[in-house]
Amino acid sequence: MIPLVSIIMGSVSDYEIMEKAAKFLDEHDIPFEINALSAHRTADKVMQFAQTAQSRGVKVIIAGAGMAAALPGAIAAETTLPVIGVPIKGSFDGMDSVLSMIQMPPGIPVATVAVNGSMNAAVLAMEILALTDEKIKEKMLDYKKSLKDKIVKANEELKLKQFKNRV
Amino acid sequence: MIPLVSIIMGSVSDYEIMEKAAKFLDEHDIPFEINALSAHRTADKVMQFAQTAQSRGVKVIIAGAGMAAALPGAIAAETTLPVIGVPIKGSFDGMDSVLSMIQMPPGIPVATVAVNGSMNAAVLAMEILALTDEKIKEKMLDYKKSLKDKIVKANEELKLKQFKNRV
Amino acid sequence: MIPLVSIIMGSVSDYEIMEKAAKFLDEHDIPFEINALSAHRTADKVMQFAQTAQSRGVKVIIAGAGMAAALPGAIAAETTLPVIGVPIKGSFDGMDSVLSMIQMPPGIPVATVAVNGSMNAAVLAMEILALTDEKIKEKMLDYKKSLKDKIVKANEELKLKQFKNRV
Amino acid sequence: MIPLVSIIMGSVSDYEIMEKAAKFLDEHDIPFEINALSAHRTADKVMQFAQTAQSRGVKVIIAGAGMAAALPGAIAAETTLPVIGVPIKGSFDGMDSVLSMIQMPPGIPVATVAVNGSMNAAVLAMEILALTDEKIKEKMLDYKKSLKDKIVKANEELKLKQFKNRV
Amino acid sequence: MIPLVSIIMGSVSDYEIMEKAAKFLDEHDIPFEINALSAHRTADKVMQFAQTAQSRGVKVIIAGAGMAAALPGAIAAETTLPVIGVPIKGSFDGMDSVLSMIQMPPGIPVATVAVNGSMNAAVLAMEILALTDEKIKEKMLDYKKSLKDKIVKANEELKLKQFKNRV
Amino acid sequence: MIPLVSIIMGSVSDYEIMEKAAKFLDEHDIPFEINALSAHRTADKVMQFAQTAQSRGVKVIIAGAGMAAALPGAIAAETTLPVIGVPIKGSFDGMDSVLSMIQMPPGIPVATVAVNGSMNAAVLAMEILALTDEKIKEKMLDYKKSLKDKIVKANEELKLKQFKNRV
Amino acid sequence: MIPLVSIIMGSVSDYEIMEKAAKFLDEHDIPFEINALSAHRTADKVMQFAQTAQSRGVKVIIAGAGMAAALPGAIAAETTLPVIGVPIKGSFDGMDSVLSMIQMPPGIPVATVAVNGSMNAAVLAMEILALTDEKIKEKMLDYKKSLKDKIVKANEELKLKQFKNRV
Amino acid sequence: MIPLVSIIMGSVSDYEIMEKAAKFLDEHDIPFEINALSAHRTADKVMQFAQTAQSRGVKVIIAGAGMAAALPGAIAAETTLPVIGVPIKGSFDGMDSVLSMIQMPPGIPVATVAVNGSMNAAVLAMEILALTDEKIKEKMLDYKKSLKDKIVKANEELKLKQFKNRV
Repeated sequence: MIPLVSIIMGSVSDYEIMEKAAKFLDEHDIPFEINALSAHRTADKVMQFAQTAQSRGVKVIIAGAGMAAALPGAIAAETTLPVIGVPIKGSFDGMDSVLSMIQMPPGIPVATVAVNGSMNAAVLAMEILALTDEKIKEKMLDYKKSLKDKIVKANEELKLKQFKNRV
Repeated sequence: MIPLVSIIMGSVSDYEIMEKAAKFLDEHDIPFEINALSAHRTADKVMQFAQTAQSRGVKVIIAGAGMAAALPGAIAAETTLPVIGVPIKGSFDGMDSVLSMIQMPPGIPVATVAVNGSMNAAVLAMEILALTDEKIKEKMLDYKKSLKDKIVKANEELKLKQFKNRV
Repeated sequence: MIPLVSIIMGSVSDYEIMEKAAKFLDEHDIPFEINALSAHRTADKVMQFAQTAQSRGVKVIIAGAGMAAALPGAIAAETTLPVIGVPIKGSFDGMDSVLSMIQMPPGIPVATVAVNGSMNAAVLAMEILALTDEKIKEKMLDYKKSLKDKIVKANEELKLKQFKNRV
Repeated sequence: MIPLVSIIMGSVSDYEIMEKAAKFLDEHDIPFEINALSAHRTADKVMQFAQTAQSRGVKVIIAGAGMAAALPGAIAAETTLPVIGVPIKGSFDGMDSVLSMIQMPPGIPVATVAVNGSMNAAVLAMEILALTDEKIKEKMLDYKKSLKDKIVKANEELKLKQFKNRV
Repeated sequence: MIPLVSIIMGSVSDYEIMEKAAKFLDEHDIPFEINALSAHRTADKVMQFAQTAQSRGVKVIIAGAGMAAALPGAIAAETTLPVIGVPIKGSFDGMDSVLSMIQMPPGIPVATVAVNGSMNAAVLAMEILALTDEKIKEKMLDYKKSLKDKIVKANEELKLKQFKNRV
Repeated sequence: MIPLVSIIMGSVSDYEIMEKAAKFLDEHDIPFEINALSAHRTADKVMQFAQTAQSRGVKVIIAGAGMAAALPGAIAAETTLPVIGVPIKGSFDGMDSVLSMIQMPPGIPVATVAVNGSMNAAVLAMEILALTDEKIKEKMLDYKKSLKDKIVKANEELKLKQFKNRV
Repeated sequence: MIPLVSIIMGSVSDYEIMEKAAKFLDEHDIPFEINALSAHRTADKVMQFAQTAQSRGVKVIIAGAGMAAALPGAIAAETTLPVIGVPIKGSFDGMDSVLSMIQMPPGIPVATVAVNGSMNAAVLAMEILALTDEKIKEKMLDYKKSLKDKIVKANEELKLKQFKNRV
Repeated sequence: MIPLVSIIMGSVSDYEIMEKAAKFLDEHDIPFEINALSAHRTADKVMQFAQTAQSRGVKVIIAGAGMAAALPGAIAAETTLPVIGVPIKGSFDGMDSVLSMIQMPPGIPVATVAVNGSMNAAVLAMEILALTDEKIKEKMLDYKKSLKDKIVKANEELKLKQFKNRV
């Protein structure tokens, strides 16, 4: 099985957050790999990983990191694959990580999503895969429709709230 | 010619920034369209645009907006195409726009790049297109290599700076 | 009974906060409706809601949302009814939501109140209703007077605090 | 002529910004008054103004102020009329003024709009007036429609931009 | 007994913080009063309080408030007594309160201390009183000396920490 | 002549701001001294200055500084005189200086005023002096009254603005 | 034994954080001293400490402080030894302390590390010591290598996470 | 001549700021090298540079970068030499760069100085060199003394300012 998405995190402590990306891909039957790599502690491995990912079949890379979150940028520097960055909340409500990801220099973008938004990183990865895979596109259409169901349920729950003057 | 990338901006005042995305795509011979649409003033057109973009052949959408920058999110809500958001600096150094873009709810990601970073949005769009187009992939590889030339030139310029104790 | 105020929230998780608006209206016998709608997951329903609210008798809309809080703006875009926005605290102490609400483009204001300040949204809604309804105006005058009682009570509590040198 | 809207500003230096509210009301034939009052320098006059505004026929108050922008809150404390606050940019990109306005205590809301967003304050005021005045409602509907024309024009301007690969 | 210092707080929920100012004054035998007053709910009483404080013998006013903390400014507007502001942490780590206090307009300063720093407000009040009261000056000198004892104690505690390579 | 107020600044580049304090004191005939001292470059002189100021007759110290503005705190550490801090805008809109001043440790307050608010520092100094000097108190009362005149003038200017619908 | 590194903290409450620096040095057999000194409460002792540290054999000073963290700057002002500052989180997520440390005036740098990053301060101190001590250099090389092991372990842990579609 | 300090910058546009470090070293006869390297565009060269710097005789590295300033961290990851980071102001008043530098992960510190504070980076570098070079130590002592002269000059300039009530 070829991994279409590669999930990378800077440390095991990020797993709790990054697991949501893995679960989302798993539920939608997207083959993926998941590993820990550190931009600062294993720079050579990050470089090697980034340079070889495409040849191993990877289409999209999701990289989560906190603090001075250099990981997604370090990967983006060494590949033409799209790299999605997940800022992970630690200090400053995650603003350190957000700024370390979005403010990339010309030529080397990181597609940044919400703080701790790893599930959305998986959605974005699937949107990219869906461009050339009809099955994934179907799944994405189904998924997007399912989002509306949450609102339907929400309203059902809200209906149980009793107020004298509720119309 | 089918537009592979669709550039959208919230107002003509954003053109100066968004032009860099258009120029980058133009220089690399990527067919694109460029239009103004407002999430708040023409919500129905945004919806219609987002719902029909894929059927017109568009693969990636780049949406630039400032302030309470709802445009990329409004588009992302109505398509499974990947949507890249360009926060445009107006107030608060662009932080209002950054937060309005990255902090999207589960299921509807916006791939946010740097403040005023429309050129990087174009690079990211081409990285996505390159996944299934060998020619674009070649261009991206060439482009990424060319980034190193800037550093070579930078060092040549720096060599001209004279210091007594420079080694 | 015609709902004079319509309370909308982006998700059921916002209910704990938005309930305060409902309770305040309920205590003052203002007929209201309360529903969940998402700017991003049910954009068409938001549009439909906003376009028909006035014809159903609604005078003021209160919309609470967190993160990239597009909901009040999306509603304001499709109605001439005044829309009150309640930023809901999630990340960044609610600053993401505040900026997504106040920084609306020319022509489409959202009347933003405090972070998690849904009760004040209800007060503001009643102030608007009071402009043309003498009974509600009376209630508002009574309510504003009652605010002073809290200070009286506060001072009574403070009187119980014993200090040697308190005068 | 009875002033339906009362525009208040903290100092004459705020006029450049607050003028946009006056112009908007003037263009739409809404009778208004415009005065300077300082929450800190003329607290008694602010109180008197706030307590008598309704009896003079005023329906909505728009108050602009910068820095520790206490003016709209001081007015809101003494009236049941809706008070719209316009944060004026001076220091900290206007964040001092935004926080001084939105973060009002329970019972005394200020309907805050964008930094320097005085025109939107006028729009919001007219939306409130439109609730009980069919003519103003018509104007608001026309105005909201006219916002779409800007986008049409924007696209006409954009059509003039020439690119080799523009579709 | 004439109160030399008047401690004012916006609500009883601020008591836990403001109590430290009261205790500090109490321990140093400075007669003081302590009351709750709200800039927004009891503006007239605030005005009356501020206008009569000096004639009752008060020399320094300490006012604590959170959020859009208008209280110290409202008092400072109506007296020539020095007013010390204590920003109280609620939202935004207390930054809303800090900005609402320090950013006062020309002519009406509020002497702002640290977030939740009510004890330091009492120290500052005593420093002002010490200018014309030798006894208080003695107490202040003693107090300032006692601060050094904390460091002596701290070092004694630190001496208990065992490390192989500690010198 | 004994200097009642001592104005200190961290560098000559702060003079443009601190001059407003000097002018205000000068206009109100308060004897003052004005000097440059650096908490970091002349720490011993700062200490000596702080320790001897009171014996030279100084009653209040005004210290202006930018960036990591340690000057007012370093002075406050060595005197029981009240120390007023003026944060000077350089980087971060002056937030670095504000936080370096307000966030003083227990026992050593700095009475912080607005960013670049040196004139208000002089007003606060005079308010403190007025506690025991009837003449200065008279001046302060006159000054506070004069603030209202600005609003009168402001309204006269505003009267010249012509609008069709101005009431 | 001569202390090569001197760890200073502003109060005993900082010990929990600063202990990590001590432990790191202890584990690597670097002789160090650890004391509490306050820039504001014991300014003379800080000055004396800073002026004599080098003659006692100290090579690097690590100073941790929170809030208006003047300690490392006060030390740096009185020595030519490199001073490493550790911002300690208290208010504002530690941003007050960060700005009080990094924003030092020309001529008196503080080498600032991460919020609560005392262990990294010890690493930096050892890097400086390693410049002239081969043994310490060896230890640093070993330590830097050991950082990679964490990633190896992290990946072993990650291998235990089971997913249907994991490759 | 062996370069004791190596100055690195991310792009030639940073030269205007980084030149101050070069000038400071040059004036004090410290042999140095100055080059441009990009963490993202020439990651391999950065790695090679960092791994070989020590063997070429470099003792301290000064790295300046703006935005998502990964350069000093990328260098620090591959050497045991102390790395000094200079955040360069571009967006967000340089806060993006500050956070990308100070918030390094455990084991890989960057010694961060003020925004645009490259001269202080050179001072810090010389302080480190001074630990083992008596001549440089003498220079540093002279330099630190010279800082006091600025204050003397400042006071001479201030003496020229005339005020009626200046003492």
